[in-house]
Amino acid sequence: MPTKNHISTKWSGKMAFESTNPSGLNFTIDASPDDGGEGKGLRPKALMLSSLAGCSGLDVVSLIKKMKLEVDDFHIETIANLTEEHPKFYDAVTVEYHFHGKNLDEKKLQRAVDLSVEKYCGVMEMFRSFAKMDIQIRYHHT
Amino acid sequence: MPTKNHISTKWSGKMAFESTNPSGLNFTIDASPDDGGEGKGLRPKALMLSSLAGCSGLDVVSLIKKMKLEVDDFHIETIANLTEEHPKFYDAVTVEYHFHGKNLDEKKLQRAVDLSVEKYCGVMEMFRSFAKMDIQIRYHHT
Repeated sequence: MPTKNHISTKWSGKMAFESTNPSGLNFTIDASPDDGGEGKGLRPKALMLSSLAGCSGLDVVSLIKKMKLEVDDFHIETIANLTEEHPKFYDAVTVEYHFHGKNLDEKKLQRAVDLSVEKYCGVMEMFRSFAKMDIQIRYHHT
Repeated sequence: MPTKNHISTKWSGKMAFESTNPSGLNFTIDASPDDGGEGKGLRPKALMLSSLAGCSGLDVVSLIKKMKLEVDDFHIETIANLTEEHPKFYDAVTVEYHFHGKNLDEKKLQRAVDLSVEKYCGVMEMFRSFAKMDIQIRYHHT
């Protein structure tokens, strides 16, 4: 049986929308004041980048646990280039995986990132369809 | 000068992340309890669908204002099919634009949706790269 995701996004006046999520949590989307909004919600296009980082980040954290790796801090920087003409989309995206810790196992962390990028992360797969992807790993030994 | 969007997504323990947004608002991403999370944040993959609906919704609301159309309520339903094998991605997406009102100008509302879908919405452009898109409009005359 196929899996369907269904979300609802309702106009709540001016340039604001309320959107649902499979978590059961709702959230607000809004345009910036420059675009006629009030800046009281998340800007929608950049949610694509959080979706990408969140999807891959969850894979990596699962693998850190499974592989019993020691990592004190972990963050992902996602830097995307927006095309200049309408429709403006992300045509080149750099994803930097930053690991901090005293006992970073670089080889295994690389393996965890590779597994997410190449095998598990569906959002990464979607991004590869429209953007040139640049994957970077940075180890910060503390 | 090219426009870059840069967002940061930081692991905050267990399966939770804090992600930034160009609005300056941060938000939490979390896995479901079934996947080892606590369900205290938004699930990342479905953020793609909110990004799509929000991007196009903002276009349509701008055009409703510009065209001085009368619309009492407006919501977008986004129903996406997820593939079964890893990496699981959205391969078919239905976007339903629902307009409610007493004096709906169907022709102009159709035009507003068409302009977003075909010309302005960059997220729609990205989705077309990996998913079969089905665009529907529903008019609810009250």
